[in-house]
Amino acid sequence: MPSRVVARRTVLRVEGGRARPRSDQLAAEEPLEIRVNGDAVSVTMRTPGDDFDLALGFCLTEGILASPDEVATIRYCSDQPGPYTGEFNVVDIATRSATPVAAELRRNVYTSSSCGLCGTASIEAVRKRAESVAGDAVQVQGATLLTLPERLREAQRVFERTGGLHAAGLFTATADLRCLREDVGRHNAVDKVIGWAAANGALPLSGHVLMVSGRVAFEIAQKALIARIPIIAAVSAPSSLAVELADEAGMTLAGFIRGSSLNLYAGERRVLLS
Amino acid sequence: MPSRVVARRTVLRVEGGRARPRSDQLAAEEPLEIRVNGDAVSVTMRTPGDDFDLALGFCLTEGILASPDEVATIRYCSDQPGPYTGEFNVVDIATRSATPVAAELRRNVYTSSSCGLCGTASIEAVRKRAESVAGDAVQVQGATLLTLPERLREAQRVFERTGGLHAAGLFTATADLRCLREDVGRHNAVDKVIGWAAANGALPLSGHVLMVSGRVAFEIAQKALIARIPIIAAVSAPSSLAVELADEAGMTLAGFIRGSSLNLYAGERRVLLS
Repeated sequence: MPSRVVARRTVLRVEGGRARPRSDQLAAEEPLEIRVNGDAVSVTMRTPGDDFDLALGFCLTEGILASPDEVATIRYCSDQPGPYTGEFNVVDIATRSATPVAAELRRNVYTSSSCGLCGTASIEAVRKRAESVAGDAVQVQGATLLTLPERLREAQRVFERTGGLHAAGLFTATADLRCLREDVGRHNAVDKVIGWAAANGALPLSGHVLMVSGRVAFEIAQKALIARIPIIAAVSAPSSLAVELADEAGMTLAGFIRGSSLNLYAGERRVLLS
Repeated sequence: MPSRVVARRTVLRVEGGRARPRSDQLAAEEPLEIRVNGDAVSVTMRTPGDDFDLALGFCLTEGILASPDEVATIRYCSDQPGPYTGEFNVVDIATRSATPVAAELRRNVYTSSSCGLCGTASIEAVRKRAESVAGDAVQVQGATLLTLPERLREAQRVFERTGGLHAAGLFTATADLRCLREDVGRHNAVDKVIGWAAANGALPLSGHVLMVSGRVAFEIAQKALIARIPIIAAVSAPSSLAVELADEAGMTLAGFIRGSSLNLYAGERRVLLS
């Protein structure tokens, strides 16, 4: 199929009071229904592409699947015609046990492109069970962290075209890029990265750095923690709850990485300063 | 209660290879459980503050309430102790009829700070019923639209402090600011604005412009449409689905408003160029 990451559109460009039509590229946004053994567990608004990684990453970081080893097959479904259910907008993950998903884990929800945590049943279930990564002894040079935003942007071809996509990059502690994913939804970009790692036998992601293009909300920190990523780096600021989680779970959280400066919000011991 | 919009925190500021502790302000992020007649309909991650407006706006733009006239009272609940349920993290809207919310409208979901559309039951329910605003004859000067990003930023005191908040501003067609709200969640900022309008008898919002600080995802356009706002203006780009909705519903969508230029993605007829 053709790329559906961007959609072409003629827009009216207004500059200095004069308008002229111009061909423009928009970030594509389409719903994806994620099913496990035929049961819908979530509908998310996402940038089409890497849908299997997204579905797998979502199910792992939201606790619907405990391990990628449970997965038998992942495929597109096209059994549900309708205005939003294109041939590539429904993904089903079949597990080896073929056990139906527990009712409390089915979301039956529509997740917007910017939502990463929809579906838990109550305010008490916001925080998922995840072990601390305090024992991860990896360290990274502060100077290395400073290079990551530019490395992420270099790798973001699509970003340059639409200005509308969030990016998540998985780096080694020496700044080697292992995986970059983009999405209209920040949480989707992270799920795609973690799903990629799961599909490639790379979980847990001990010793790695997750670099995100925007800010760090609670959900991003929680997804990284569940994949056992010890260090999160971000262009913008974290929220208070993301910092709290990082503190509690022994994660390192660096933000506002701009030029030659950054802020360390948690887990400073992993960052080496010259 | 003290302001909970920002949380103070000592961070390690690294600059030119040297680190020193510094007091910093983080955007606060806390869960809010929204109930209608005692039934939980959603849990959203939000910036505390304007919680009643948020709950009301959410219920209206998500179709849980058809009109603000249905509301009898809105109050905080404190009946559910737990690590996340502070005294001000559960809001209940009691309706005059006290009818339980229909099961299909209960979300029982956890909505992240960046999610605005969680909760519909399937991919087919993504798009909500809303009438076209094509009949809204308001027009706005292109030069006026160009001033809105700066006016929004001027009004954003908190943004300057934390760098982590989205803003939504409701303007008249002559750029008078009627309401500004900020939130860690873009959709929450919009719900707070629409909830404010609902609480002040200002719905429908015909003739108004909604200015948002980031990009326009589908959910933002849909919320504006349900409040009958004919014009959306944004600092960044819309998604493909937001433009599709604007087209179908007769909305005007201006984006990439920067300096003396902007893009018109839909409904150009409402924008007057000199």
